[in-house]
Amino acid sequence: MPTPTDAVNETTFHVRYAETDTMGIVHHSVYLVYFEEGRSQLFRQMGSDYAAVEASGYGLPVVEAGARYLAGARYGERVTIRTRVDELRSRSLSFAYEVTNPDTGDKLATGFSRHIWTDANGSPTRMPEEWARFLEKPADD
Amino acid sequence: MPTPTDAVNETTFHVRYAETDTMGIVHHSVYLVYFEEGRSQLFRQMGSDYAAVEASGYGLPVVEAGARYLAGARYGERVTIRTRVDELRSRSLSFAYEVTNPDTGDKLATGFSRHIWTDANGSPTRMPEEWARFLEKPADD
Amino acid sequence: MPTPTDAVNETTFHVRYAETDTMGIVHHSVYLVYFEEGRSQLFRQMGSDYAAVEASGYGLPVVEAGARYLAGARYGERVTIRTRVDELRSRSLSFAYEVTNPDTGDKLATGFSRHIWTDANGSPTRMPEEWARFLEKPADD
Amino acid sequence: MPTPTDAVNETTFHVRYAETDTMGIVHHSVYLVYFEEGRSQLFRQMGSDYAAVEASGYGLPVVEAGARYLAGARYGERVTIRTRVDELRSRSLSFAYEVTNPDTGDKLATGFSRHIWTDANGSPTRMPEEWARFLEKPADD
Repeated sequence: MPTPTDAVNETTFHVRYAETDTMGIVHHSVYLVYFEEGRSQLFRQMGSDYAAVEASGYGLPVVEAGARYLAGARYGERVTIRTRVDELRSRSLSFAYEVTNPDTGDKLATGFSRHIWTDANGSPTRMPEEWARFLEKPADD
Repeated sequence: MPTPTDAVNETTFHVRYAETDTMGIVHHSVYLVYFEEGRSQLFRQMGSDYAAVEASGYGLPVVEAGARYLAGARYGERVTIRTRVDELRSRSLSFAYEVTNPDTGDKLATGFSRHIWTDANGSPTRMPEEWARFLEKPADD
Repeated sequence: MPTPTDAVNETTFHVRYAETDTMGIVHHSVYLVYFEEGRSQLFRQMGSDYAAVEASGYGLPVVEAGARYLAGARYGERVTIRTRVDELRSRSLSFAYEVTNPDTGDKLATGFSRHIWTDANGSPTRMPEEWARFLEKPADD
Repeated sequence: MPTPTDAVNETTFHVRYAETDTMGIVHHSVYLVYFEEGRSQLFRQMGSDYAAVEASGYGLPVVEAGARYLAGARYGERVTIRTRVDELRSRSLSFAYEVTNPDTGDKLATGFSRHIWTDANGSPTRMPEEWARFLEKPADD
């Protein structure tokens, strides 16, 4: 099993009003969107883009995801999404996430997503060579 | 200008918790989603499906939309979307919507959406014959 | 540990266009919204409403949720959410969900959510008596 | 009628995958969320926060909103929301928005939202003095 890159992305933005619910906090489903934004920014930080995955004929659909919710985030507050590659397998890949309030330091949520590689037909496939190089920790690190 | 069908769809469902915001009412952007669901149900009631528009190689992207908000809808309440074809032109189409609370009779919002016909390349095109027949009021009505 | 009600809710609706993404299938975050709609309908089927939980001064915030995604759902397709109470503890509660396409029988996703009881101050509390009676399997069943 | 501040906010972010639909572009309802984020950032740029409006006991609910859609935005692309106060009345307020792709210069959408002032009971009220000072163009400008 290859060792994943130790790149970590931290991306910070304001909670949007539309993301809150009657309880006055960000709806729990929105954290999966935050996670997705986190891994998008991780790819960008590493010099590529998930759009490039799709453009190269592959896909990385989510096959499993989960979150633990520790505290709520309100409109006007900022959130920081911390994203890293957790596990790199020949046919799958998982990310780990942590959401905090950067102004108070409060941890708001943790979570993960697991993805498989698919080819142009949407069928499961092995991790493409070029993406393996992108996601693995360089041998001489 | 052809006379649009006088079919009217009324579709009713419960407000979802995720659709509400910190004010405790359905977020205003969600009404555009309700409108879309209304026109989807109108197509189904008339015996087709917007998916069939796309399957036939055409598209009906929204080029303009708007809403007036009269009263809020809370989680647990039901909403009824009343949808009709408002205007049928050779290259465009508009729908009119009314959202009410079916249990109180309160009017919650009104709105419209305007769409153009696009072909397989996404270029604007004339309303296809088969869809004209579908959306027009029959001559002998 | 009390035995949860064996009530099961099945609720069916059409995929909304806004719920789909560039892959042409329902975005994975939307399943958490579907799950929420499932447990809302379970409460309604049992004769109450989650709005009544909040009206009685309590809350049932989600503290953990997860899903496994087996197949995609496209616009125009119908989905059925099957919801049941999975575990009833003195201070928490979990639901289990299964999402299928009722027209093909395909299983699309499974998932769960875990909730704690909170009081009027938002502090964790024991399951209120009246809600225990509502959610437990009657003794003489 | 007071002259509105000539402050203009430009805020730029990446399109989120969850915001796209089967057509591969940002769903039209999401632009209302972008507009809201634009006016949130305008308030922040001017040194306050819409959360402060609510904290001061007032509200600014949307009573009307609309958009014209000129071109689609895809996942991975950036969007810039340009927001300004368009009209300042004794009891209402409107914002104008323009969404562009900052990398191509393409204009994607224009829109507006109209809001009324409400008091702690949610009843319409006059624009509060402190917010008038905040939103008006200073006399000696």
